[in-house]
Amino acid sequence: MSVAPAVVLLSGGVDSATTAAIAQRDGFDVHALSFRYGQRHAVELDAAAAVARQLGVREHRVVDVDLRAFGGSALTDDIAVPKGRHIDADDIPVTYVPARNTIFLSFALAYAEVIGSSDVFLGVNAVDYSGYPDCRPEFVAAFEVMARLATKAGVEGRQHLRVHAPLITFGKADIIRTAVDLGVDLAATISCYDPSDDGGACGACDACQLRREGFVAAGVADVTRYASLAS
Amino acid sequence: MSVAPAVVLLSGGVDSATTAAIAQRDGFDVHALSFRYGQRHAVELDAAAAVARQLGVREHRVVDVDLRAFGGSALTDDIAVPKGRHIDADDIPVTYVPARNTIFLSFALAYAEVIGSSDVFLGVNAVDYSGYPDCRPEFVAAFEVMARLATKAGVEGRQHLRVHAPLITFGKADIIRTAVDLGVDLAATISCYDPSDDGGACGACDACQLRREGFVAAGVADVTRYASLAS
Repeated sequence: MSVAPAVVLLSGGVDSATTAAIAQRDGFDVHALSFRYGQRHAVELDAAAAVARQLGVREHRVVDVDLRAFGGSALTDDIAVPKGRHIDADDIPVTYVPARNTIFLSFALAYAEVIGSSDVFLGVNAVDYSGYPDCRPEFVAAFEVMARLATKAGVEGRQHLRVHAPLITFGKADIIRTAVDLGVDLAATISCYDPSDDGGACGACDACQLRREGFVAAGVADVTRYASLAS
Repeated sequence: MSVAPAVVLLSGGVDSATTAAIAQRDGFDVHALSFRYGQRHAVELDAAAAVARQLGVREHRVVDVDLRAFGGSALTDDIAVPKGRHIDADDIPVTYVPARNTIFLSFALAYAEVIGSSDVFLGVNAVDYSGYPDCRPEFVAAFEVMARLATKAGVEGRQHLRVHAPLITFGKADIIRTAVDLGVDLAATISCYDPSDDGGACGACDACQLRREGFVAAGVADVTRYASLAS
């Protein structure tokens, strides 16, 4: 059986790790792509590398992208990360990074074209999406339409891009159950927006609380390593 | 009169300089955006800065983007730049950079959101487009559809993104005539794919020949500074 290459956006969180494992389950040879984009903490990239190793992906590339050039987010600027769950889906939180998924998917498209792949995976989900516009199915579908017109490989018929978002209808508990079923080492992943320098999760930000609720709802022991004071 | 901000992709070539002048003529306050993307020569960025100064734009930002991470083009790799005109529009040339305009427009989208702009300009044209898929009107239209779904400002109704490609139906002679009419200093621009270290145009690559033909067809003196051996 020949194995088709796929590009998987890998952040180091539960969602993208699970997405990479799903791509492997579905028979793809995974080329993982991460970004150094001015995150406050490099902990995320360490987690992405650990996940890539654990899953045994074909290749893991990290691309430098200077999202701080424009500012506008608590994840890249000196804006405090809010604590507590972000409930109102109509109110987009300050942790939103302008056009982030559009930029990341554009790089994935370039990478896919160069390695001769027609399949890009990303781990967005619209259920617990916290109000990010670029995590919605209509955004993913529109990106796919655009991408099919954008590349030399597309025009020449060698690429008919598919953007896979296998978690799009999953809640956090579904994701954690799937991750466990597929053998993802969840202790290697990090979801926290505000981790300690050694990678401990704060336990209090929106992402931490969502993750913790997911473990509880899935009936799976929470293997997250929390920073000592917040656990 | 209040002046609306616009983001203009500025490469330092004739097309993007003319596009910036058109945006100003149409009443926009221009925020120019250039990329350091592993070009073989920094000459392009010097030209972009000179054009930005000459037009008196509001702001000119240069963002680092590592397109070399994926390779695949004579403009960023050690592939020889071919000499002579590229005639066959069905055969995409080796100077194509994978997903370049998609990536550049994605950054423009982020910049537009941060400065509260709904207008992005780029200088592509489909007539003399040399076969690049991401210079076609259908690509530009599809990007616009996607971009309207991608941002917080779009979802909140503060942004209804328009991607302007005012040169899309122009030939090179039309562009040069328009540039002259709008007072663009064409001597400050550079189109060459393979310039000398001090910014002299080679006169022989596809971009140089297209530009030279444009000056001739427009009946305008060619103010291009050619490298000594090629003129």
